[in-house]
Amino acid sequence: MSIRSFHPPVRTLMGPGPSDVNPRILEAMSRPTIGHLDPAFVAMMEETKALLQYAFQTKNKLTMPVSAPGSAGMETCFVNLIEPGEKVIVCQNGIFGMRMKENVERCSATPIMIEEEWGKPVDPTKLEAALQENPDATVVAFVHAETSTGAISDAETLVKLAHEYDCLTIVDAVTSLAGSPLKVDEWEIDAIYSGTQKCLSCTPGISPVSFSERAIHKIQNRKTKVQSWFLDLNLVMGYWGNNAQRSYHHTAPVNALYGFHEALVILQEEGLENSWQRHAHHHNALKAGIEAMGLSFFVDEEHRLPQLNAVTVPEGIDEAEVRRILLNRYNLEIGAGLGSMAGKIWRIGLMGFASNETNVLNCLAALDGVLADMHADIQTGQAVRAAKGVYSA
Amino acid sequence: MSIRSFHPPVRTLMGPGPSDVNPRILEAMSRPTIGHLDPAFVAMMEETKALLQYAFQTKNKLTMPVSAPGSAGMETCFVNLIEPGEKVIVCQNGIFGMRMKENVERCSATPIMIEEEWGKPVDPTKLEAALQENPDATVVAFVHAETSTGAISDAETLVKLAHEYDCLTIVDAVTSLAGSPLKVDEWEIDAIYSGTQKCLSCTPGISPVSFSERAIHKIQNRKTKVQSWFLDLNLVMGYWGNNAQRSYHHTAPVNALYGFHEALVILQEEGLENSWQRHAHHHNALKAGIEAMGLSFFVDEEHRLPQLNAVTVPEGIDEAEVRRILLNRYNLEIGAGLGSMAGKIWRIGLMGFASNETNVLNCLAALDGVLADMHADIQTGQAVRAAKGVYSA
Repeated sequence: MSIRSFHPPVRTLMGPGPSDVNPRILEAMSRPTIGHLDPAFVAMMEETKALLQYAFQTKNKLTMPVSAPGSAGMETCFVNLIEPGEKVIVCQNGIFGMRMKENVERCSATPIMIEEEWGKPVDPTKLEAALQENPDATVVAFVHAETSTGAISDAETLVKLAHEYDCLTIVDAVTSLAGSPLKVDEWEIDAIYSGTQKCLSCTPGISPVSFSERAIHKIQNRKTKVQSWFLDLNLVMGYWGNNAQRSYHHTAPVNALYGFHEALVILQEEGLENSWQRHAHHHNALKAGIEAMGLSFFVDEEHRLPQLNAVTVPEGIDEAEVRRILLNRYNLEIGAGLGSMAGKIWRIGLMGFASNETNVLNCLAALDGVLADMHADIQTGQAVRAAKGVYSA
Repeated sequence: MSIRSFHPPVRTLMGPGPSDVNPRILEAMSRPTIGHLDPAFVAMMEETKALLQYAFQTKNKLTMPVSAPGSAGMETCFVNLIEPGEKVIVCQNGIFGMRMKENVERCSATPIMIEEEWGKPVDPTKLEAALQENPDATVVAFVHAETSTGAISDAETLVKLAHEYDCLTIVDAVTSLAGSPLKVDEWEIDAIYSGTQKCLSCTPGISPVSFSERAIHKIQNRKTKVQSWFLDLNLVMGYWGNNAQRSYHHTAPVNALYGFHEALVILQEEGLENSWQRHAHHHNALKAGIEAMGLSFFVDEEHRLPQLNAVTVPEGIDEAEVRRILLNRYNLEIGAGLGSMAGKIWRIGLMGFASNETNVLNCLAALDGVLADMHADIQTGQAVRAAKGVYSA
């Protein structure tokens, strides 16, 4: 056996994540490793928390990155906030709502499912009915921006309803953070998790989370121990908390956190509102191009995420073959459909650093060319011009 | 708020980990991110598994990195292998044995504790007595190389005993992998986890694990679901397994895995046995210097880890002040004692890339100087010469 160093191809990442990583972040990750209890590292942790509070628009003290990918951020919220035997209302309108159900069950709690057609937002009237029928429910969980379909739900309204019925809320903001308006304090979200590899343009592997005082109160007064030692916030707080003496819990992923810090510095430089506007702007250009081809979006305009564009695959086209050509000839990655959407949609991400004019035009040109070669029923040659029209308007 | 990019100080890392990272690994981590389902990435995953099989000396198919630090690797072993109500014998001779107990309890299982004085290896006769007393025990768990004390236990003998009583084995090899002889197949270990930031000299954040066919059989035939969705190997295998079609489970930490792959390539280049010998060699030089100062080791020579040297703090010396001066004046990090060892020992790591002559001599020179300035009762000025004697022998 003689295996050599790995040199990845240089791709343009316009799938559902990871998205293109800003080279500043890659450079930050390659800086010299220091100890996870080094005073210089602890000072960086404090800056990271402050920057993350800004990104989440919160003053929550317990706002920090979990040392593992978004799926672990999800699990952190569920295992800490839910005790065995509780009833949890889960609003499901895509793959990630299904994972929430799995999490609830593995906490020995009972999920009450509100199911919505994929591609539609969560319906507040259905949530209200479920809250009325289940006065003993303790938590409501939903996905703000469904990465599997590209639909956004009205988080503010859903949280308000949950609170009227004395339920805490767990919100999945993996794809919304930094891409769509998200205001943790104003909307009174209790527990929220996100990912780094979407609109923050960072490498995958870290999950930012934030918890309200109400949530912390429940966590600190649990009757049972949190079932995960690694994710137990009562222990993690000893390391990430504001205490003078940081106590060792686990070894933090030092270099990944350098990259995460840099991603948040970049977001602060751009400004959160500017980031939201940039995502909306490039979505509009992509949309003009997609529609000029005669293709359609899977999600209604009103509930469509600018950063994740689910485009319906034209009749008779082998969608996997299209993605394969885009990857091999253009080094361009776009995403497939997940679960019941497999084969039916493409997911084109315009997230973070990847949300720019060059990517929009290149993607449209490549997709238009590949579909034309496959004799798809599209209007060829119009897509790039339509997008340019948006940029020059 | 205006927070700027973080530029860490350049340290020499001779604590209990993270250890000095080979610059090749830092450079590898900064390579362009690609998708976690990209064919080029999947090919790299296959190489990583093969390299890791070599490092663990195993042919176990289920040999892969968990996408989170060593603590999550530990939890992966426990939550997958243990079902509620089982009896698990935990051999404890330091901090990490205590964590194993926490893991067993959080799996709703019953830990049977075999406690050993800290700094001593696990005693096989005590294990055998516990196995006889608890014929219904299903698993035996122990730490191969205790990072909190620097003591090594006889893993081969302990596993053999466990198997005689039909128990599966979970072994913590966080500090031993690549630093001390470790032979997963020859010793018939069933489940093993390690870290990246010790003798592999990689950045923290990933936990290599390996499972025998016996272990996989148990995992695939569980009566209850694994309590962690993120760590459920039945699901993770869909992504890391040998199936042609990789199914998405969570988004892998792509760039951290570039670094891990590079760390394993470096180990393959050096050769595993050469790496073990290098760790032993530099330990001998450090030992000569430490003893020349008149300081003593906490662990008996026979059970002493070469890569983690627990040195007893001399009477009347403020150990934290010594570490502070080493860090601030020499950019040199050594470790403190954990738990009941706090204030009593230093932990000097000679792990991976950090296990070299320059580090040994610099550490001895700095420690000798700082202790002399503090009027410690040591023989000053002899340490470096003694270590050099080993190198020139």
